[in-house]
Amino acid sequence: MCIICQIVEGTLPSYKVYEDEHTLAFLDIAPVTDGHVLLVPKQHHQFVEDLPEDVHAALFDSLKKLVKPIQAAFDAPASNIFINNGPNAGPIIPHVHIHIIPRPKKTGMNLFSGTARFKPRNKEYFEDVAEKIRKKIRQ
Amino acid sequence: MCIICQIVEGTLPSYKVYEDEHTLAFLDIAPVTDGHVLLVPKQHHQFVEDLPEDVHAALFDSLKKLVKPIQAAFDAPASNIFINNGPNAGPIIPHVHIHIIPRPKKTGMNLFSGTARFKPRNKEYFEDVAEKIRKKIRQ
Repeated sequence: MCIICQIVEGTLPSYKVYEDEHTLAFLDIAPVTDGHVLLVPKQHHQFVEDLPEDVHAALFDSLKKLVKPIQAAFDAPASNIFINNGPNAGPIIPHVHIHIIPRPKKTGMNLFSGTARFKPRNKEYFEDVAEKIRKKIRQ
Repeated sequence: MCIICQIVEGTLPSYKVYEDEHTLAFLDIAPVTDGHVLLVPKQHHQFVEDLPEDVHAALFDSLKKLVKPIQAAFDAPASNIFINNGPNAGPIIPHVHIHIIPRPKKTGMNLFSGTARFKPRNKEYFEDVAEKIRKKIRQ
C-alpha cells in the first residue's frame, strides 16, 4: 500500500497538523525549512487532474486554510507551494501531495539537494513544529 | 501597474492559452520546458490565501482543466505545479500565479538557474507552443 495511504490510515505514524473529511496535513519528515507540511487528499489518486471534483475542491480549500497559519507559526511572510505531479516531476510518491514550505528568509530554491533536507531530526523537534502550526490553526 | 495586471488588461502582450471569467493562462516567456504556462486570477492579489472564495475556486478549477492538455501537448506524463507565494519564496511578481511545467523527461529541479530558462525564443516558437496547448484544450 502507498506510503501516504498508510499515513492516512494511521498504520504509519506521522506528525499531523490538520485533518478534515477529505484531507490530511502532516509534517514532511525531511523538511526543507521548519514547518514544511504535506497536504494530501485521503483518497488515493496519483495525479491532481484525476481527483473527483469534491475532493479537488476540499484539497484546495484546505490549502487556503493552512497557508497563513503555517507561515505565521514560523514568522514567514512567504511560502513555496508545489505539487510534483507524476513520476517525471521529482522524487515523488504516487499519491497527490501538496508541499507547503514556509519561507522566513529569502534563500535558494534547491529544494531537493543539499544537506539541509536530510538533517536528522528527533521526535521533540517534530512535536514542537507540529504544535506551533496546530496552535496557529486554532487561533 | 503590476506586470500580470497589464497582461490581463492586454496592455502587455502575451501568448494566451486559456481564459475564462476569473482566470487567464499564458506562456511563461522564460520557459523551463516547452509548454511552461502561468495560470493567474484576473483580480490582483499578492497571496494565494487572500483570494476571495469564488476566485480561489475558479483558479484551482482552471488548474484542473489545464494540467492534462498542457501535459498532452508535449507528451509529458507529469508536471510540476507551483506557487511562489510571497517575496521570500523566489524571484516573483506580486500577483498570484501558478506555474504549470510539463515534464516529458525526468530531469533536475533547478527551475531558476542555468541557461535553459533564459534561452532566447522567437515569436514563432511561442505561437507554436501556445497553439499546441490550445488544440489539446479544445479536444
